[in-house]
Amino acid sequence: MVAAHPFDVDTAVEAIGESRYTASVSDRWSLVGGHANGGYALAICLQALRAESAYPDPVAVSANYLRRVEPGPAELTVEPIRQGRRLWVGQTSLIQDGREKVRVVANFADLAAASGRTEVRNAPPVLPPPEECVEVYDGRRPTPLTLADRLEFRIPERPGWTRGEPGGRLEEAFWMRFAPDDHGRIREPDTLALAVLVDMSAPPVLDLGEFGSTTIELTSHVRGVPAPGWMSCRASTRHVIDGYHDEDFEIWDASGRLVAQSRQLALLPQPKTDQGD
Amino acid sequence: MVAAHPFDVDTAVEAIGESRYTASVSDRWSLVGGHANGGYALAICLQALRAESAYPDPVAVSANYLRRVEPGPAELTVEPIRQGRRLWVGQTSLIQDGREKVRVVANFADLAAASGRTEVRNAPPVLPPPEECVEVYDGRRPTPLTLADRLEFRIPERPGWTRGEPGGRLEEAFWMRFAPDDHGRIREPDTLALAVLVDMSAPPVLDLGEFGSTTIELTSHVRGVPAPGWMSCRASTRHVIDGYHDEDFEIWDASGRLVAQSRQLALLPQPKTDQGD
Repeated sequence: MVAAHPFDVDTAVEAIGESRYTASVSDRWSLVGGHANGGYALAICLQALRAESAYPDPVAVSANYLRRVEPGPAELTVEPIRQGRRLWVGQTSLIQDGREKVRVVANFADLAAASGRTEVRNAPPVLPPPEECVEVYDGRRPTPLTLADRLEFRIPERPGWTRGEPGGRLEEAFWMRFAPDDHGRIREPDTLALAVLVDMSAPPVLDLGEFGSTTIELTSHVRGVPAPGWMSCRASTRHVIDGYHDEDFEIWDASGRLVAQSRQLALLPQPKTDQGD
Repeated sequence: MVAAHPFDVDTAVEAIGESRYTASVSDRWSLVGGHANGGYALAICLQALRAESAYPDPVAVSANYLRRVEPGPAELTVEPIRQGRRLWVGQTSLIQDGREKVRVVANFADLAAASGRTEVRNAPPVLPPPEECVEVYDGRRPTPLTLADRLEFRIPERPGWTRGEPGGRLEEAFWMRFAPDDHGRIREPDTLALAVLVDMSAPPVLDLGEFGSTTIELTSHVRGVPAPGWMSCRASTRHVIDGYHDEDFEIWDASGRLVAQSRQLALLPQPKTDQGD
């Protein structure tokens, strides 16, 4: 039997009773600073929540990032808040060394059972096929950025920041999928993955010459069960104001349907940051 | 001494010790169904949070609407989560008759003290001055909609739904301010008001012929301390999918700066709804 894909292995939680869970934060989803990517940490939280939820799909997820999540052991406590006919609502906290790192409130539903009106005033990005695009990361990335080994990003033209020439582009469109694992297998997206993939690509503010960004709050809305295959994405930052910035993200599945959207509020790097105490 | 403005009177909370508060939900901010507008209920929550916060401005607010808020007494419990150098994070629940109605996690900061880069790739809506626009609500609204008496909306042309002819416009731009109180005074916006004004106007889906919308989750990001005067706004819904829809909202202050943005996920009315159990 072949081992599970890294995304499933590294986000697994173990129930230890009374709505408590343990998890092991892997170093395979780290950012340049060596701490865990926020989307990866959120996936662990959603695994704990989904273990208690009556429904499979995290349709509305709000994550508040309190402190950096580091590779190593973590504990999670889940509070079920409400069971409704169409929505289950719950909250969890990811704790390391007795300190709360992430707090998440999430609404779960069964999207396959959703029915009602559909009216979309938007379209997926127009992109050449993935095989005619280039990889965003070209192998010259800094070593601690293991996150870049877990995903593939294909873009028509590499943004300026990747060659040290930030061009001020704050809107990018590209293809994304999980990278093949050691056995060459692609893991297809599911709704839990969608809720966190919105926070796993390079932030557009890098093309302003910034070297990073610290998420304060991220909201993901998962809008559909994704078809297998490459996802097309739009990432954009429209308002950088006094060091705070937004970032919007859309994911369209291989069949051309919008399946996830997110917005986050984040801080540009400052000499002294609020994070890490 | 003249009494305070209805927004301040009706959102006031009273501390009863141990991070607990009481409030009285007024019937002056009700929707057609007679229950309280979600933005108004959120304002009460933010008053309780701000009473405990070290900083004045709710920069990132996520509200989960669990059940309808009804006029009458309410209790709130506040949990301070984290005090940082730039952000205070806290959570509150609004409870009526022992049942949790709204759960809010909010990040507060001091926006007047914020400094850092500014780069905006967006512009306020282009609108004729308020005095050349018409009121969205023209007096023929249903009686229970007291919310419409608390605010003024000025729009170049009334949307089709206001005359029973929905035109499928899912993006509107208009002016907004608090309505004059009984003494003719205008209450100017502040950052707490901005965080909830994003949810106090008619939803764009009314122009699809829908008669309402039930918010599941609302995230507000307050991006600046507003100048006094009319605010210009954009409300848009881009994705109605299987009965779920998003709604984005922008508020620009009288000096032309983006001061708030929000997104919510909501449900169109269905014969049997998830709300109200």
